[in-house]
Amino acid sequence: MALANRKMQPLALAQVRIADGFWRPRLDVNRTASIPHIYALLKKTGRLDALRLAWKPGDENPPHIFWDSDTAKWLEAASYSLAACPDAALEKHADAVIDLLAKAQQPDGYLNVHFTVVEPDRRWTNLRDWHELYCAGHLIEAGVAHFEATGKRTLLDTVCRYADHIDSVFGPGKRTGYPGHEEIELALAKLYRVTDEERYLRLAEYFIDERGRRPHFFDEEAEARGEQPLRHRQGDRSLEYWQTHLPVREQSEVVGHAVRAMYLYSGMADLAAETGDEPLLAACRRLWQNVALRKLYITGGVGARHGGESFGRNHELPNESAYAETCAAIGLVFFAHRMFQTEADGACADVMERALYNGVLSGISLDGRKFFYVNPLASAGDHHRRPFFGCACCPPNLARLLASLGTYVYSASDDAFYVHLYVASQATAEVAGRKVAVTQETDYPWNGDVALVIGLDRSAKFSLRLRVPGWCRKFTVAVNGKRAAVRVTKGYATLRRVWKDGDTVTLAMAMPVERVAAHPAVAEDMGRVAITRGPIVYCLEQCDHRAPVRSIALPDMTRLTARFARRILGGCVVIEGSGLAPAPSGWKGNLYRRAADLGAPRPTKIRAIPYFLWDNRKAGAMTVWLPRA
Amino acid sequence: MALANRKMQPLALAQVRIADGFWRPRLDVNRTASIPHIYALLKKTGRLDALRLAWKPGDENPPHIFWDSDTAKWLEAASYSLAACPDAALEKHADAVIDLLAKAQQPDGYLNVHFTVVEPDRRWTNLRDWHELYCAGHLIEAGVAHFEATGKRTLLDTVCRYADHIDSVFGPGKRTGYPGHEEIELALAKLYRVTDEERYLRLAEYFIDERGRRPHFFDEEAEARGEQPLRHRQGDRSLEYWQTHLPVREQSEVVGHAVRAMYLYSGMADLAAETGDEPLLAACRRLWQNVALRKLYITGGVGARHGGESFGRNHELPNESAYAETCAAIGLVFFAHRMFQTEADGACADVMERALYNGVLSGISLDGRKFFYVNPLASAGDHHRRPFFGCACCPPNLARLLASLGTYVYSASDDAFYVHLYVASQATAEVAGRKVAVTQETDYPWNGDVALVIGLDRSAKFSLRLRVPGWCRKFTVAVNGKRAAVRVTKGYATLRRVWKDGDTVTLAMAMPVERVAAHPAVAEDMGRVAITRGPIVYCLEQCDHRAPVRSIALPDMTRLTARFARRILGGCVVIEGSGLAPAPSGWKGNLYRRAADLGAPRPTKIRAIPYFLWDNRKAGAMTVWLPRA
Repeated sequence: MALANRKMQPLALAQVRIADGFWRPRLDVNRTASIPHIYALLKKTGRLDALRLAWKPGDENPPHIFWDSDTAKWLEAASYSLAACPDAALEKHADAVIDLLAKAQQPDGYLNVHFTVVEPDRRWTNLRDWHELYCAGHLIEAGVAHFEATGKRTLLDTVCRYADHIDSVFGPGKRTGYPGHEEIELALAKLYRVTDEERYLRLAEYFIDERGRRPHFFDEEAEARGEQPLRHRQGDRSLEYWQTHLPVREQSEVVGHAVRAMYLYSGMADLAAETGDEPLLAACRRLWQNVALRKLYITGGVGARHGGESFGRNHELPNESAYAETCAAIGLVFFAHRMFQTEADGACADVMERALYNGVLSGISLDGRKFFYVNPLASAGDHHRRPFFGCACCPPNLARLLASLGTYVYSASDDAFYVHLYVASQATAEVAGRKVAVTQETDYPWNGDVALVIGLDRSAKFSLRLRVPGWCRKFTVAVNGKRAAVRVTKGYATLRRVWKDGDTVTLAMAMPVERVAAHPAVAEDMGRVAITRGPIVYCLEQCDHRAPVRSIALPDMTRLTARFARRILGGCVVIEGSGLAPAPSGWKGNLYRRAADLGAPRPTKIRAIPYFLWDNRKAGAMTVWLPRA
Repeated sequence: MALANRKMQPLALAQVRIADGFWRPRLDVNRTASIPHIYALLKKTGRLDALRLAWKPGDENPPHIFWDSDTAKWLEAASYSLAACPDAALEKHADAVIDLLAKAQQPDGYLNVHFTVVEPDRRWTNLRDWHELYCAGHLIEAGVAHFEATGKRTLLDTVCRYADHIDSVFGPGKRTGYPGHEEIELALAKLYRVTDEERYLRLAEYFIDERGRRPHFFDEEAEARGEQPLRHRQGDRSLEYWQTHLPVREQSEVVGHAVRAMYLYSGMADLAAETGDEPLLAACRRLWQNVALRKLYITGGVGARHGGESFGRNHELPNESAYAETCAAIGLVFFAHRMFQTEADGACADVMERALYNGVLSGISLDGRKFFYVNPLASAGDHHRRPFFGCACCPPNLARLLASLGTYVYSASDDAFYVHLYVASQATAEVAGRKVAVTQETDYPWNGDVALVIGLDRSAKFSLRLRVPGWCRKFTVAVNGKRAAVRVTKGYATLRRVWKDGDTVTLAMAMPVERVAAHPAVAEDMGRVAITRGPIVYCLEQCDHRAPVRSIALPDMTRLTARFARRILGGCVVIEGSGLAPAPSGWKGNLYRRAADLGAPRPTKIRAIPYFLWDNRKAGAMTVWLPRA
């Protein structure tokens, strides 16, 4: 199949084995706690039983329009987990669910529980609001993942029949349409890759290109339901919620519902990579630049606003009221992953790393059984993870991302092996016609030393391209113990040579504690700094402090030291030093006072912990951005 | 009538003539622009024609459940305006509306357009959501205002009949009930004062004391409609929205919808003042302390959250996302006004002054024809006043408050004359059995010099009590040119003596520019200061600056100077000095950077304008709280 625009290809899950001190325990928690926990909740909430199609009008707990997607994402997570670690019980559960799905499929291929048992006469009548194509997309992703993980065609065949059905309904000369919640586009691209069936790619292309065209499909669809078009009530801007305000090729600013946006752009990037569609790729680049340089939290969170779960204006990045949905950060990882395959630009991988280690990982508790839907950068102490949500998109989304982490670490091209993430692991790939094995050893993200050992049957010439993260200002590379001069191009240090079996490359990245400032247009962070070290963004949590953490200022000059604290939060590097707490006195009877009357602030010990670990101890306030003093 | 708890009584509108350089032009704009503008919009939107009861099912534009309240507030504003300044055309308009109201009244006294023509079978079936008692309250306030202003009983008689009807429906032994949107409580207290009919006060007492009792009336009412009680869905906290989570006497924290809260507490304070009900007054005091010391913007705005238009937690006072509804600041003025009549505590009047000169006045444009519903303390430049709102509570609320400003300036007790606000005016009152005339001269709020001339038929001994604002740190008082030693008790400087006709008192308050800090628990203002001078809170507006205003920091030590600028915004004191703007370079390709790499900030001229005047020039960003540097 063509690879017109991609400069490299990610390794498949089966090609990578993770053996990392940081990630391995988290992936194990995902496998042993999160995936069973989510399964139990799918069952308890009726999502699994709903697949039996036994619900009848008058019964309680009608299957909801997005339930199928939750089940599908769990299946996808379970599949990735099975690929990495066989588990007979899990496989049995998955097969049972897949069997129910196959039986729930209608003779024409249609597969959606809600619109089969609750509103059978409303099939495809409200693509804008009712998540049918969204659920279909997740089922397709699950089918692809399950096939790739297990080699079984059971779910793949089911979702192919469903995709065939959808293809028979929508497209040029058929019904007009596209989803209100994007997702099916990237799913169809995956299905195309695994089946080589070009119809699926063309259907994705149809959904992408139809989006935003005038006359506007959502208007026509509303009128067909006897409703007023929405934008007559809310103005044209409301179309931005669905990214349908313009044809996608004309879009330049990331807008609207953040998860939808990220899934759409990922699908666009997939399509551009497969078809070599330059104008579409150009739109992806503009949207990428906009999100990465104007609408990205330092944690990798995206989608600033609670209203509409949406992007705000450029540089609108409030902290306590940040939405930064876990699923949106995951969607950003998807978009970033596609962009750097195409662009070979480490800046895209930097964003992926930022999200992974911060705004994605914050979504899940240490025990793997509680989740954030919303990931603010400051809290008064009233924001906590929960076991599940009525709208349960985030937990299984985290589970599937973590279970598939291996695919994000490396890529291979015809003559280069790329290391994007520093994760201790073994990988195998074909590069320059030869099978290359790479063993990576590192304690990243807690320190910046990485060793890579190359395994080869016989010598081969190719490039080893090591990502030099944007946060890294000083590094050295050595080959077999000898310092090597390397050139860094677009964020990758390249070693091109004839490699021999057993060659060892070491990368030593200095990882000092840094104070980071936000662009001055980010009004809420003016006069503030965040503490970072390597890829990790830090925060102050109340339980480590006596003074209210949100009142503590950080002098520019005080020394901050990093140490690995084995007993804190399962073991992590904490950063300690001295801050300034406001004098507490003089406020009796006052909410506002002359600044000149404030007493001198008092030095106070501070301890910063990784942001992603907050809310795993005693409930309390938290803050990322500290006022400078 | 008893005055068990009030230490003083405000002067009636007829007793005060305002001749103030600051307020007079604004009151004239209110009379000549705002009141006619609002009348035109009431007419244009169908609110006035609706009073003819001609709407029939199937017609467009059904009269909305809160329309009557908009009309009533306009009538109240028109009445106050007529009291101060006869205007035949306005009187004719008002009389015509009053005539329509009388004709719209049903034989049993009921008077509500929506529930007469749109949903006649739903009368009194949803007090929680449908604003019937709220509209009734505003009609009653209008009736009282119109009678006091014109001596005509037309509207007063109508609203008495309506109040009698309501009294026949609700109360002990009758139907249980109280409003979802409080307002009728304070209105009934006013009606009691003007009619001396104790039933009205008892009905207010019933609504106040029934509130929050268990079993919960809103539940019973919902069940009677065949609906689930709300709190079964949303948890008990949702009751806070309506201040019905506890019996009002047990409440200590201001919660829920801010306007509703302020109107309720005002009604509670009225009732306590009339009945001498100490436990109720104690609840008012606790609620007052909570709002004044924990939930008040520096502008006098209240109600931090857009969600539910409601109060946030203690110290939750975000700036850009502040709700601070104009009506809530007006409600705070009502509550404050009642509290200092009872408490004789200048701290209450300080809050009233803070709201009046900042968060209330910001609600209206210089030309009197555009209004803020929401009053944030920072803006990216996308927040602007509008001519009217679908929910049009704020414009006529501003109009009635401004038209009745005279009643807020002075109070009289048996042996004291109180000056609460510094507003050039003439006032007459009875103190110590004698008629006292007071002429006040001042350029407040632009400077702190005030002269008061006492007019008396013959000498009389009484106290003159001058409020020394909380912002004032240095002042002198002189009588007939001779410095007087005064003691300040609870915010009032008292001169007790035998006054002669022509005695002149001068109060000279130093009014330096101040940098003010917020309590360290107000997380968003940490490390920031606001610029104030006298009662006026300042802001930076983009059109006065080249650097983005929200990026400008204010060094602690630079000099800030005040000058009266005749040509700016109709004439106002502006504050000028030097701030620091971040170096603009180095951000290409970066949203976050090492703080140590930032270039040195550059001095930049700043000009601060009064907050209430922002958004009257070129649209742009605005900020109140500046980072300290």
